[in-house]
Amino acid sequence: MTALRLPVPPGFVVTTEACRAAMKTNAAPPGLWEQVDAALARLETATGRRFGDPAAPLLVSCRSGAKLSMPGMMDTVLNLGLNDAVAEALARETGDARFAYDAYRRLAQMFGTVVLGAPDEPFEAALAARRAARGVGNDAELPAEDLRELTQQFKRLAPFPQDPKEQLRAAVLAVFRSWSGKRARDYRAAAGIPDDLGTAVNVVSMVFGNLGLTSATGVATTRDVTTGAPQLEGDFLVNAQGEDVVAGTRATRPIAELDALFPAAARQLRGICKKLERHYREVQDVEFTIERNRLWMLQTRTAKRTAQAAIRIAVDLANEKVISRREAVLRVGPDQVDAFLHPQLDAETSKAAVAEGALLGSGLNVSPGAAIGRLAFDADTAEAWAKAQKPVIMARPETKPDDVHGLLAANGVLTSRGGRTSHAALVARQFGKPAVVGAMKLVIDPIARTLTAPGGRVLREGDFVSIDGTRGDVYAGELKTVVPDLADPRLTTLLQWADQARRLGVYANADYPRDAERARQFGAEGIGLCRTEHMFFEPERLAVVQAVILAPDAAAREAHLKTLLPLQRADFEGLFTAMNGLPVTIRLIDPPLHEFLPSHDDLQREVTRLQTRFELCPTERPALETLLAPARQMLAAVERLREQNPMMGLRGVRLAIHMPELVRMQVRALFEAACACAARGVKVLPKVMVPLTAMSAELQLERAMVEDVAKAVMAEQGRIVAYRFGTMIEVPRAALVAGRLAEHAEFFSFGTNDLTQATFGISRDDAEPKFLAEYLKRGILKKNPFATLDQAGVGELMRIAIERGRARRKGLDVGICGEHGGDPETIAFCHEAGLDYVSCSPYRVPIARLAAAHAALRA
Amino acid sequence: MTALRLPVPPGFVVTTEACRAAMKTNAAPPGLWEQVDAALARLETATGRRFGDPAAPLLVSCRSGAKLSMPGMMDTVLNLGLNDAVAEALARETGDARFAYDAYRRLAQMFGTVVLGAPDEPFEAALAARRAARGVGNDAELPAEDLRELTQQFKRLAPFPQDPKEQLRAAVLAVFRSWSGKRARDYRAAAGIPDDLGTAVNVVSMVFGNLGLTSATGVATTRDVTTGAPQLEGDFLVNAQGEDVVAGTRATRPIAELDALFPAAARQLRGICKKLERHYREVQDVEFTIERNRLWMLQTRTAKRTAQAAIRIAVDLANEKVISRREAVLRVGPDQVDAFLHPQLDAETSKAAVAEGALLGSGLNVSPGAAIGRLAFDADTAEAWAKAQKPVIMARPETKPDDVHGLLAANGVLTSRGGRTSHAALVARQFGKPAVVGAMKLVIDPIARTLTAPGGRVLREGDFVSIDGTRGDVYAGELKTVVPDLADPRLTTLLQWADQARRLGVYANADYPRDAERARQFGAEGIGLCRTEHMFFEPERLAVVQAVILAPDAAAREAHLKTLLPLQRADFEGLFTAMNGLPVTIRLIDPPLHEFLPSHDDLQREVTRLQTRFELCPTERPALETLLAPARQMLAAVERLREQNPMMGLRGVRLAIHMPELVRMQVRALFEAACACAARGVKVLPKVMVPLTAMSAELQLERAMVEDVAKAVMAEQGRIVAYRFGTMIEVPRAALVAGRLAEHAEFFSFGTNDLTQATFGISRDDAEPKFLAEYLKRGILKKNPFATLDQAGVGELMRIAIERGRARRKGLDVGICGEHGGDPETIAFCHEAGLDYVSCSPYRVPIARLAAAHAALRA
Repeated sequence: MTALRLPVPPGFVVTTEACRAAMKTNAAPPGLWEQVDAALARLETATGRRFGDPAAPLLVSCRSGAKLSMPGMMDTVLNLGLNDAVAEALARETGDARFAYDAYRRLAQMFGTVVLGAPDEPFEAALAARRAARGVGNDAELPAEDLRELTQQFKRLAPFPQDPKEQLRAAVLAVFRSWSGKRARDYRAAAGIPDDLGTAVNVVSMVFGNLGLTSATGVATTRDVTTGAPQLEGDFLVNAQGEDVVAGTRATRPIAELDALFPAAARQLRGICKKLERHYREVQDVEFTIERNRLWMLQTRTAKRTAQAAIRIAVDLANEKVISRREAVLRVGPDQVDAFLHPQLDAETSKAAVAEGALLGSGLNVSPGAAIGRLAFDADTAEAWAKAQKPVIMARPETKPDDVHGLLAANGVLTSRGGRTSHAALVARQFGKPAVVGAMKLVIDPIARTLTAPGGRVLREGDFVSIDGTRGDVYAGELKTVVPDLADPRLTTLLQWADQARRLGVYANADYPRDAERARQFGAEGIGLCRTEHMFFEPERLAVVQAVILAPDAAAREAHLKTLLPLQRADFEGLFTAMNGLPVTIRLIDPPLHEFLPSHDDLQREVTRLQTRFELCPTERPALETLLAPARQMLAAVERLREQNPMMGLRGVRLAIHMPELVRMQVRALFEAACACAARGVKVLPKVMVPLTAMSAELQLERAMVEDVAKAVMAEQGRIVAYRFGTMIEVPRAALVAGRLAEHAEFFSFGTNDLTQATFGISRDDAEPKFLAEYLKRGILKKNPFATLDQAGVGELMRIAIERGRARRKGLDVGICGEHGGDPETIAFCHEAGLDYVSCSPYRVPIARLAAAHAALRA
Repeated sequence: MTALRLPVPPGFVVTTEACRAAMKTNAAPPGLWEQVDAALARLETATGRRFGDPAAPLLVSCRSGAKLSMPGMMDTVLNLGLNDAVAEALARETGDARFAYDAYRRLAQMFGTVVLGAPDEPFEAALAARRAARGVGNDAELPAEDLRELTQQFKRLAPFPQDPKEQLRAAVLAVFRSWSGKRARDYRAAAGIPDDLGTAVNVVSMVFGNLGLTSATGVATTRDVTTGAPQLEGDFLVNAQGEDVVAGTRATRPIAELDALFPAAARQLRGICKKLERHYREVQDVEFTIERNRLWMLQTRTAKRTAQAAIRIAVDLANEKVISRREAVLRVGPDQVDAFLHPQLDAETSKAAVAEGALLGSGLNVSPGAAIGRLAFDADTAEAWAKAQKPVIMARPETKPDDVHGLLAANGVLTSRGGRTSHAALVARQFGKPAVVGAMKLVIDPIARTLTAPGGRVLREGDFVSIDGTRGDVYAGELKTVVPDLADPRLTTLLQWADQARRLGVYANADYPRDAERARQFGAEGIGLCRTEHMFFEPERLAVVQAVILAPDAAAREAHLKTLLPLQRADFEGLFTAMNGLPVTIRLIDPPLHEFLPSHDDLQREVTRLQTRFELCPTERPALETLLAPARQMLAAVERLREQNPMMGLRGVRLAIHMPELVRMQVRALFEAACACAARGVKVLPKVMVPLTAMSAELQLERAMVEDVAKAVMAEQGRIVAYRFGTMIEVPRAALVAGRLAEHAEFFSFGTNDLTQATFGISRDDAEPKFLAEYLKRGILKKNPFATLDQAGVGELMRIAIERGRARRKGLDVGICGEHGGDPETIAFCHEAGLDYVSCSPYRVPIARLAAAHAALRA
């Protein structure tokens, strides 16, 4: 600001170099004090005042000046240069003894606590005693003599040096020291700031906003950092020093009132703010003081802002030609777009709720956004209440496919068990429902219909709760939410600029036509993953799917598949229609069959219960027999399909090879739908995708099957539909033998969830609530590899697969359709690794568009 | 043999080139018959006889002559050149009408069936009718006129050409055709012989062993192919043609009797056999004919032999300087050594048993060798019977740790469930007990105490069964076994020669001192894997281990660990003592904790049963309550530890980090044992190995822990024991980040079972009885990747790990300790990939020594 010739009080800087040297030796580096003395001498000349000279005393402040702003983390000492003699002289000079002794009192207190490390309590106790004696509530109301006496009292609490140079030296070293304090280190660790930068110290001559009614002090941002509106925002206090504004002990006045009270200074401030914004090409957060009607600028830094403000500011600055569109795109973090997509808990209110003890517990933040509603402990209740316009949070120990209607009806979902890929988490994310899962310390009892928090607090069905899916917290009661707007024209503009900058395509994972439509609205350029089996879970279909699985022979199976075929065809028609002109990637059935059957444990309990009854109650036997037989039969079927490690069992392409009728039906439905849509003038671009491939022979077999069915259907329909055949890469072997797979596959899509599991040998659902949390806490893992791609392991396999696949097939189309596809850091990796597109849940499409642009602009 | 100037009947060869040309066009290539005619003319000159000339007829045989012997797979036609006129003349010329018409009858029959493809039955029926009419049991007893009439009858069954040249041409093409016959193709597929080689046809003038008592025909091997003894072995028949010897319709005479009956020919044959062995440098299997006291050699080829003979012959030939020691080592297949290590079912007897319907079913051949005994359906019965000297086969649906005493007492193990890594399979292999597991079609009912075979045949407890762990078959009754001898001095010699040739070290996997001793006897140079948790499964320890797991807090846990410490220390002392001077690799605890607890399903049934009883029988409640409480508690504990995919859950290093006390106890026991042994003068070389590492931070943590405990123990004991620290590489990520792991690890050991599972995303126990079997049958997989290493996927990861590991740490010690370590093909890969050693079960150590030598010699 000095270089810009703005009114900054004169001063000098002790550099970070000096700080780093001091950190190494734990002492001031040789020559430091000589240089400081020389600078001080120049400052004395510039101000016409002298350090420690009662005749015209120079007072200075000592503030940290780090490369990156760490608000509130570093120490500051004001009013250096005062001692008994200077204070008395200053009182005389200004004619304001209260001011002089207030400044002296503040110095003695700050020096004692900050520089000498004395505890703060005795100082505050002495102040409180004075206030009590005077019967006042505010230090500003204490008279000058009290303040003078307090200063003497403070000097006894900590050995305050009378020599101003000694004060300054000690203060400089204290600021250096504060760089290595625990608070600062923790902040840097969290913010990713290197520890070895060190801090500079700004030694600046003091100006005073507390010299009566012609003086004031305040803070301002050059634009509104809540909404982004292009107007100066801030607060000030008349007759005050900076810390009074921040402390909140006196009611501040809005910056708009400055014009009336200090018209000249206000005009000057507005001009300076505009100049600063132009200079730094960014919204600024400034501190200023008006000393006897003269404006002094004390600090400027880039202003923090809300997500909404960030977007508006970036777009406005680009439109004002202050920054380029490219810079505007880079100015907004992908996470800030995420905040736009879901109502969020209001930060103030939730902070207050914590203070009031309303925080019941925490779980995994699996689907972002805030949701508020009445506790319902089963899906039917949730649905009924939602129909009656009651807001609902569905709470279950865990959810199952037949809970989906309740889940869709509810505002949000809460479970006490399950991980990031649990049923509740997947469905919630898919539909953008805020969800907290695996809140292990909450006891959710669907029989007693209660939720019990760790302290023993019990909530009953119908009680209000608020869940924060962004952070994973669960509160009792109704908290306030803030609802951003995705249709915000500035967001639309920013995303269009992002689209122009990115190379990566952005697809969406969508299983239903309604998802596909939403994805398209959000800017998806295709469907990267349609999980066909999700359609099987809908209640009216599940029974048919179970009949298919339990069919005694192929003929019986075919009959049930005939029932399923038109349903699945209709699903595909809906998808193709919604994505008219864009590619739709359809993955053939993936999960193990037992996922479609009732739970083994429930069945076993049921059979044992009936069996025991049967043994004990001879009279009931005929009735029990009719119940036992089917239960036993189902249990036997489930046991036949049961696996020790179902994740690595009979699923994916293995299932397709083992039970080919099921997959042939899917492929038939797909091509019948494609032909029907094409007949209606819809442009269909199907991609058929095989899951869990590990060997090229698997792919060869499936390709022949798909070609066979496709040819038959097209012949029946008298229509040709072009399609592509490809495979998921989701087991490590697939990546290693990618060259051979590319002989049969026209595209690859990385299933990074399974690939991460296999590469680490970690089952996500087992690991996340157990040792993975521990690993992250202890720093054994820096990041959760299921949220952000593990580049050293999983990423390495991806690089190998891409290299070997493209070596065999030029221009092989490569994408990612795991959840990682919506993670900005992973998207940057995908850009570098040369993928063609990322595919993520519809709600993350805007985030991915922006992240892909960042990756391209940074590359 | 012609080139060796041995007495071979003159003839010529139609080359494989002609065969290949004929296969392509399905017709004789141009010029073929002209060349055949020219060769035939030369043959007529050489023999002084003419083809089709009744005055001095030339008869020839037409035999296949492929590059690689395919015994019995290809067609042959004898006696070509006969027709009505020639037969009559031959009868006159030889004065033996029966001989002439027998030859003619044979030609007509062979030509009809082999060349013209007529069904065999009508020919055989006509012969049978004649025998019946004459009241004789043997074709040789039919008079000449019957044979003549039969010939005419045969000519009506198939249009037999009278033109000898037409006969020859048709016979040559028939032999060509037989190359592409189903039998031959199947054989080649199984033996790995390329399909496009084609066969040559040897056209050789006939000699006759059936010209009266001065003629004979026989087969011989130049050494005894059952025992390997260096003496001529074989059989012959006087007055017979070759096919009579093979057909077994007449009793053959041992070759020793040839000396008495045909002294000159016998002497000549012995000389020729010696010459052939020297020439081919290999034992030969020859066919010969004596025609009117003159010896003719008809065929020689390398002789098939038993494992025992193979070893003796190789060693003898090397000692006789016929071959080098290096060649001797290469002459014996590693599988042939395997046969030495276990009693085997006698091949003849088991073939007969199949014919009699005694084969009950098949399962996985998880531990080789034959075992015979009485069915026992639980471990206690098995143990009791074994103590009473009754041979036992323990049969269970599956086995559990508390069945081990029965398993050790039994001769062999049979289960109906489980895969190659099931408990039964692992324990059986470890102790060299023959085992068949996962024989899914056998219903083993330990309650009813019956075993039911698919046909409904029921065996009861105490009935005899024979199991073939080498092939996976289960028979009813007591079959004959053959017991080879490992202490055979020739095997010892051969293995010593192998040791001189190999570069790879051979270690053993051993968990108990008795295994270690056995491994050392078998030539192991160290222990590559001691699974410390196996010691926990012993009955008296399991209760303590359970107490450790269920301990409410760390203090209670420590108390139980104190009980475990001396037991584990004693185990280690035993191992170190047994392996005095050799390295012992000790893997820290690996399996998930629930493996040490009772089965979840059993507990759930128990609790449900008690609970239902409790509800229904109010009077029993107090008694039931005391049972319910502990059962519920155990169930809750098991449910807490339960995982969806335990293979990828809380185990290995994750467990060590999660429950550090347990592993610290193991490390303390290890170093206390090492110090105690060192004090007794035992040379201890411990290697401490961390399982399931995926991240370098895991290794860093564990290394610090091990160093900490080791230092403490050594300080207490006042003794320094050098040790090495290393890790398993058994998840793909470990291979990919091997460079980082090598910063902390001094050695790597590939756990290829887990690595294969993770690389394919396949759970072995689930897959092997289900889709893996299907994959192998359908050729989607060429080999079971859990038996023979998958080089394209898993091997590639190993190469990556070795390269990256050694780039970071020069001379990094690398081994393999999965079961693959005992598989010859995998051992060859390990040699090429630059591993330092392989480690396998003690019983496979001799096989591995030989396989390692093969790899080195072939490289």
